[in-house]
Amino acid sequence: MTTTTASTVTTATELEDILAAAHEAAGPWGALRPAQRADILDNVAAALDAAAEELIPLAARETNLTNGRLTGELKRTTFQLRLFGEVLRDGGYLDARIDHADPDWPMGAPRPDLRRAQRPIGPVLVFAASNFPFAFSVAGGDTASALAAGNPVILKAHSGHPELSVRTARIVVSCLRAAGAPEGVFALIEGTEAGSAALRDPRIKAGSFTGSIQGGRALMDIAVSRPDPIPFYGELGSNNPVFVTEKAAAARGPRIAEEFVASFTLGAGQFCTKPGTIFVPAGSGMVEYLRSAALPAGAALLNDRIQSGYLESLRQLSAHQHISVLAQGPDPLSDPPSPTLLLTRAEHVLAAPRELEAECFGPTAVVVEYDDESQLVPLAQSFEGQLAATIQAEDDCPVAELVQVLADKAGRVLWNQWSTGVSVTYAQQHGGPYPATTAPGTTSVGTAAIERFLRPVAFQGFPQHLLPEALQDGNPLDVPQTLNGQR
Amino acid sequence: MTTTTASTVTTATELEDILAAAHEAAGPWGALRPAQRADILDNVAAALDAAAEELIPLAARETNLTNGRLTGELKRTTFQLRLFGEVLRDGGYLDARIDHADPDWPMGAPRPDLRRAQRPIGPVLVFAASNFPFAFSVAGGDTASALAAGNPVILKAHSGHPELSVRTARIVVSCLRAAGAPEGVFALIEGTEAGSAALRDPRIKAGSFTGSIQGGRALMDIAVSRPDPIPFYGELGSNNPVFVTEKAAAARGPRIAEEFVASFTLGAGQFCTKPGTIFVPAGSGMVEYLRSAALPAGAALLNDRIQSGYLESLRQLSAHQHISVLAQGPDPLSDPPSPTLLLTRAEHVLAAPRELEAECFGPTAVVVEYDDESQLVPLAQSFEGQLAATIQAEDDCPVAELVQVLADKAGRVLWNQWSTGVSVTYAQQHGGPYPATTAPGTTSVGTAAIERFLRPVAFQGFPQHLLPEALQDGNPLDVPQTLNGQR
Repeated sequence: MTTTTASTVTTATELEDILAAAHEAAGPWGALRPAQRADILDNVAAALDAAAEELIPLAARETNLTNGRLTGELKRTTFQLRLFGEVLRDGGYLDARIDHADPDWPMGAPRPDLRRAQRPIGPVLVFAASNFPFAFSVAGGDTASALAAGNPVILKAHSGHPELSVRTARIVVSCLRAAGAPEGVFALIEGTEAGSAALRDPRIKAGSFTGSIQGGRALMDIAVSRPDPIPFYGELGSNNPVFVTEKAAAARGPRIAEEFVASFTLGAGQFCTKPGTIFVPAGSGMVEYLRSAALPAGAALLNDRIQSGYLESLRQLSAHQHISVLAQGPDPLSDPPSPTLLLTRAEHVLAAPRELEAECFGPTAVVVEYDDESQLVPLAQSFEGQLAATIQAEDDCPVAELVQVLADKAGRVLWNQWSTGVSVTYAQQHGGPYPATTAPGTTSVGTAAIERFLRPVAFQGFPQHLLPEALQDGNPLDVPQTLNGQR
Repeated sequence: MTTTTASTVTTATELEDILAAAHEAAGPWGALRPAQRADILDNVAAALDAAAEELIPLAARETNLTNGRLTGELKRTTFQLRLFGEVLRDGGYLDARIDHADPDWPMGAPRPDLRRAQRPIGPVLVFAASNFPFAFSVAGGDTASALAAGNPVILKAHSGHPELSVRTARIVVSCLRAAGAPEGVFALIEGTEAGSAALRDPRIKAGSFTGSIQGGRALMDIAVSRPDPIPFYGELGSNNPVFVTEKAAAARGPRIAEEFVASFTLGAGQFCTKPGTIFVPAGSGMVEYLRSAALPAGAALLNDRIQSGYLESLRQLSAHQHISVLAQGPDPLSDPPSPTLLLTRAEHVLAAPRELEAECFGPTAVVVEYDDESQLVPLAQSFEGQLAATIQAEDDCPVAELVQVLADKAGRVLWNQWSTGVSVTYAQQHGGPYPATTAPGTTSVGTAAIERFLRPVAFQGFPQHLLPEALQDGNPLDVPQTLNGQR
């Protein structure tokens, strides 16, 4: 295991300068036309791609992730920056609505001329994650969507990859500066105290976070207990359960077992969408298929803190009286730890869901035998909010009700696919009820993520030349406009 | 002044039954097709219209509001229910997005078939307001939008109009029942303790509130400190300042003075959008026009609590060393209180903005003289978040910058109009940064209000027959679908 390099810490004086600059940059950055910000995001993407040969080895050294994985993640990250550029050029994200004055509006009073569009919310504080040193870190999804929306970003670096963070931030800042973006539109800060001080500062208008339930909740509590509370978009923990029907087990049990192992051990189990529990029919052979599935070799976890947290979670799960070990590599408690499959039964999960459905961040999953498919719905209901939930099935019995229950619990429901690997698309939803996230109406992946960093404003009775361009009759930006309720 | 009738209190046992029924009703109510819910909302609207002759006198007796005002408010309320029906029939609110599988998706990994739409968030707890006994109460905007979105509603009645609340709720419940809606989809609860107990209950998935900063913040604190925090949409306090430019004062000073008086005394100043401050150029005659404008007679406030709160706010404002009385009716401290106009200067507001910009709920406003238009921008910047802000101007100097600053501060910016009288439309925005609301990205008036009570879910790799209808290729609901990012 690599020992984490001690990161420097942003001082109070430095933080004050950064906050003041972000506050000053908000107006000019938000006032750029969306297509201008898109061009700048494209430049940032190109500069990061061009720096791949420097950044990937640095990331590998600080995170223990493989070059292959990191190469794909950087590609995803720069794709994401460009995709938000596409969102900006399209302009639909502005949700421009124009109601003309209507003296006969049936409300009982004349309707004034009202025009509403989204505006940047203001400087955003983004807390980087440890497990995606590119895609959920310095130039990751939250930075991309908040900058795209027209907000300055202050990025609290994750201590797990400090050198990579500093280097990535330098590339971002230098690109922004070269493109003529206002000074202060992006800055990196380091250290827990600087992060929480920034979150308390009135110049920060929204916060976002990807990480643990404990860490995320502590930050959310700061954000909502400010004299002026602000939106806080935390993506916290998730178990991402998998439900295998009897017919699916009969039709393709060995393949399901193999794919499940591949999914829960991907990236050494360090994905927020790692499937942590699989419900399988007793007597179907699934338990045996899983017991005999080839577990991959152990891989070093991200850092010492993740390693010790993983071992503690594994210890707690294993200590439960109704948990036994189903399969395990040679060194489950070592560094790197071999993967582990635990085994229990449905009635035990129903009796102690919070213990047995807890997230275990690392290469461990729990296999749960059930006796009857009628148990699947109460089992699904026993979960807290989830990022994802998966059904492996052949037909629709008893699946229709299960789909509804899982849609009530999770942000994404999968059918015969696996929850690891979250595609960045227009229809993606990476969110869910608490504790999956602190803001169930939002997503942190996909184009809809930009909505988190916007705020609608209506202009009543305004002359054309003082309206935002998106709301002018001439529509100089050529954005989609909803006119009198008609798209 | 009418003494408020003591309202009954919902017991813990009654509340448990109501919560259990709402929880049970969520599935079937949310599963109705949107057009079916629209038909039911239309029925509720028709039943309330039909009961106008009973409801309006009851409301007048409990609130001291005039029959004319209440007649208009009831019309607005039933219009609102029907407008959300229109939203449901249109289907755009579902934000249906379909991404087909794409093996060549440039992210670096094949894109799965992903389909995302909005779903009901779950049972909603609505706290009614005192000042709109129809439009922001039992069958008001939050009830309409939450029911439309597919959620059961538990309505915490305001103690200011208990009989009207009970009677309105009976009409709503009876309409819902007659239409075959699931039992428990709507229920009234009474009493502060029942309200906060309901807000703590895990079966409640969102809360909404219209009222004071103090009351709203206390409820928000409950919602966000639950073991499972939930979204809380509070509309709290606002000053809604008005900025009069020199040229506007010169061109139409007397008319501005007259219209301002009409706006701040409308409904005895008991609107959340009442303009509480007007900035006028010194030496323009505006102060004299305002001093000599005819103040209307005093009108009884909603109830004793509002009356005593108003007198306390007036006392605090008047006690400020730099505040003097500009104009006042004969009985400013009586019941009913005559309107009051106070006077101060810009530099005093800048020196003590929190004191001099505080909301005074009732027929008082503060006139602020400024010496130079260059003061308008810092004055605008000195405000906290607002529901509305108004510019009275003739040209665009120095207005362009002022518009930007006010758009940063307020949910709605008006040009030569008045903020009282919030039209219910597609482009309305009734919201704003804290303390105007606790959720700056949302509105509580207008069709976009439905977004507060929805949660997106993505379905990955699903067979057609198990997808929500809005996401099926055949589009049986004929809703707008975004296909591969194209509307």
